[in-house]
Amino acid sequence: MSYYHKHVFFCVNKRGEGEDCCANHHAEQARNYVKDKVKMLGISTDKNFIRINSAGCLGRCDQGPVMVVYPEAVWYTYVDQQDLDEIIEEHLANGRVVERLRV
Amino acid sequence: MSYYHKHVFFCVNKRGEGEDCCANHHAEQARNYVKDKVKMLGISTDKNFIRINSAGCLGRCDQGPVMVVYPEAVWYTYVDQQDLDEIIEEHLANGRVVERLRV
Repeated sequence: MSYYHKHVFFCVNKRGEGEDCCANHHAEQARNYVKDKVKMLGISTDKNFIRINSAGCLGRCDQGPVMVVYPEAVWYTYVDQQDLDEIIEEHLANGRVVERLRV
Repeated sequence: MSYYHKHVFFCVNKRGEGEDCCANHHAEQARNYVKDKVKMLGISTDKNFIRINSAGCLGRCDQGPVMVVYPEAVWYTYVDQQDLDEIIEEHLANGRVVERLRV
């Protein structure tokens, strides 16, 4: 059994001047938004224990910004708050994969 | 199927002065050691694709320093290079869980 039922890692890697990276796509803000909203909604419970983490480069830069949900190993990209809300409400709260954002 | 067959996250979180944290237990060096050794041994292959990541606080500070291997969701603590070598050679190279280091 997994210690966290949904362990989410956001790539928040920042590269040098002129190089693209997840940090250039507001990855840190996205991670903070999801972390705060999961807390606000109260969807992390004993039976659905959720953790929202930051991480270094996840190695899928060409599809970034990226995040991954373990142990199910579902990867997402996202553009805006609407995308993040859908991942929270569908996947994190209810375990339904959001196919349109999957990478 | 998981994009990475073994996706490893080391907590490298650093807390303020006087507070204990994984960073105080050489977590960054441990992560770099494992990353370099996996590369040196050539054990990350198409059939055993390994990624060694750093991450923010993984929330299990009382058992730190900690690392987790996904998608199998196996958590470890470690003290020295011998512990890391055993995790590399047993778990990462051969998929055998190192029970003595599990948390």
